[in-house]
Formats: sequence, C-alpha cells, structure tokens
Amino acid sequence: MIQTSPTADDQTPTIRDQIVEAADAHFSRYGYAKTTMADLARAIGFSKAYLYKFFDSKQAIGEAICTRCLAPQFATIAAAVEAAPTPHEKVRALFRTSVKQCLEQFFNDRQLYDIVAFSRSENWASSTKYVTDLNALLESIIRLGRANGDFERKTPLDEVCRGIWIAVLPFSDPVLLQHNLDIVEDGLPAVIGLILRSLST
Amino acid sequence: MIQTSPTADDQTPTIRDQIVEAADAHFSRYGYAKTTMADLARAIGFSKAYLYKFFDSKQAIGEAICTRCLAPQFATIAAAVEAAPTPHEKVRALFRTSVKQCLEQFFNDRQLYDIVAFSRSENWASSTKYVTDLNALLESIIRLGRANGDFERKTPLDEVCRGIWIAVLPFSDPVLLQHNLDIVEDGLPAVIGLILRSLST
Repeated sequence: MIQTSPTADDQTPTIRDQIVEAADAHFSRYGYAKTTMADLARAIGFSKAYLYKFFDSKQAIGEAICTRCLAPQFATIAAAVEAAPTPHEKVRALFRTSVKQCLEQFFNDRQLYDIVAFSRSENWASSTKYVTDLNALLESIIRLGRANGDFERKTPLDEVCRGIWIAVLPFSDPVLLQHNLDIVEDGLPAVIGLILRSLST
Repeated sequence: MIQTSPTADDQTPTIRDQIVEAADAHFSRYGYAKTTMADLARAIGFSKAYLYKFFDSKQAIGEAICTRCLAPQFATIAAAVEAAPTPHEKVRALFRTSVKQCLEQFFNDRQLYDIVAFSRSENWASSTKYVTDLNALLESIIRLGRANGDFERKTPLDEVCRGIWIAVLPFSDPVLLQHNLDIVEDGLPAVIGLILRSLST
C-alpha cells in the first residue's frame, strides 16, 4: 500500500512514481491486458476515484511505465554511441546496444516487454519519443560521417535514415523481434554490414 | 462433394487436388486453426479414415494449399526478374513483385494469408521451399551484377544475400508485413534504395 503523507524531501518518490512502481509490479505478475483500473486501485490500496486523480486511464499508467523503462535504455544507447570512436563504430554501437537491450528485456521481464511492444504497435507517446530520439541519434551519426568524409553525401539524408531504420526493424522493433529471435545472432551483423556498405563513399 | 470415379484424362484433377481445393474453400470460410480433419471429411463428403488415406494430417493439407498458392507467386516473381533489363532493376523487381503479391493476398484472401503466414512461422516445407527459391533467385541476380561489374565483389556473397534478406523482412515476411502495412509505401523504396547503394561498386 502506498503512503500518501507529504514530505519535504525532493528525492522522495512522488505518489505518481509510487503508483507507477506498484502498477509495474502488478502488470508484471498479472499482465497489462488483464488488469483493470479497479484491480490496480485495489492492489495499491486506493479508491478507484482517487487513482483517477493521478492517471486518467490505464494507458496513461502504461505510458509512464514505458517511459521509465525506455528513458534509461536510450541513455545507455546514447552513451555507447558517444564512446564509439568513428561514425562506422557509432552506427554499430547504436544498433547493437538497442537490440541487446530489447533482447535482455524479452528474456528477463517478459510482461514489461509485452507492454513496451504493445505501446510500440499502438504508437503511444512513450514509444514515439523513444523512436524519435533514436532516429535523431542515427541522423546525427550520419551527419557526422558525412562531415568527416566517411559516408557518401549524394542520397538525401532523410531517405538514408529511413532505409536504415526499416532494415533493422526485424530486430529493433519489439513486436517484430519476438518473431526473429532465432536469426538475431547472424542476422544483426549481416544487416549492420549491409548498412555500412550502403553508407560508404 | 468430391467425385472419386476414375478417369483416363490426365488433365482431370486428382482426388488430392480436389481435397486441397475443398479444404482451401473450407479454411477460407472457417479458418485453418478452427477446422479439424473430421470437419474437413464431413465438408468433403468422405469418411475421416478415407481422408487420411490421402493426407496424414491437417498440416499436410495446409502445406499443399500453401504450395498451390506460393508456386505461381514464385513463377510471377521469376518472370518479373527475367523481364527486368539490369541487375539493379532485377533487385527492384524481385522485392516489389514479392511484396505486392503478399499485400494483395492480405487484402483479398485473408484466411489464406493467415495460413501462409502460419506456415512461414512454423517453417513448413512449402514455405521453406519458397524462401529457398527466392534466396537462390536473389543470389543469381547478385552473381550476374558482379559478373557485369555492376555490383561490388569484395563482400562474401552469402553475407551480402543474408543482409539483403533481413533488410526486406519487414515487408517480405507475411508474419511481419501485417505489422508494417502503414509504412510499406514509403519504406519499401527506401530499403530497396539502401540495398542498391550497398551493392554499388
């Protein structure tokens, strides 16, 4: 049960944070689809009306859970890209890290994976932001590679990014990845190799 | 009801053909998953035991339906590739034609599409043959492009084919395509463009 007593400490989780935490645990156990707002309110120890003061729908809680999960994932990917020395290595780091995270989530927290996959297929704001941020990161790498003379400059930048994004979808999209688990190991290096050849001058 | 009286005419469909035809119609109406061998036998007018003389499982009938559907699809793709004048155009023809056929099946015969998608995810022999044939066709185009001097020759051929195959999966695999219908129109040209740039000398 969540304590709602106020506190002056900024580090203390807010009530919203605690609801998200409790909902995450509940979804992990019973699944997102099968849980209702009434179930969540009961599990948390709130009245349903009081829960609605913080989140106006189950999806709003789901989005908060996805954001909590995807924001650190993106930070890890951005750090791996930052650490990679060349544009070629940055492209590799971007896709290797993002797919690795997807796979870890699939095997370690399947219920959360399913919520994230659902959020992706339904274009929830939480997933749209993650996809937009990853695309912006990809675009920044391509720009850098073009400025350095590592990558070709003839093809329009948005067309290049679009093609790359599609090519890695079988492994980077959680909805598709679950159908392709058996081909990740040899398929991901093959498609990254194809992408790097397509970028070369 | 199927007539089992013998005939000397080679053009007359065999009993197996007629069972496949009737099963296809039945699956299209009631769905593959929900239909049993007993349902099929009843619909065709055979005893279940007699049906088992021709096909030893529902999957065997499903495979025959997939083969009947995929064999002419492959012939159409091969003809489009044959008609395309250059290796670049042949790559485009291969993927445009195969994805177009997948899309037409999705919109015009959804139950059959679902059987084909299921057969793909389960690696039935009918789908494995189609995939193997398409990969062989792709490889023959790459060989031709290399021989002509149109395509680069440094990367191992199997690695090139593997990368290309993965990159178009979001649209060429019926299991994945149904999640990507909204991005086919701009995504397919983008990924074909990426593939052609990766092949260039």
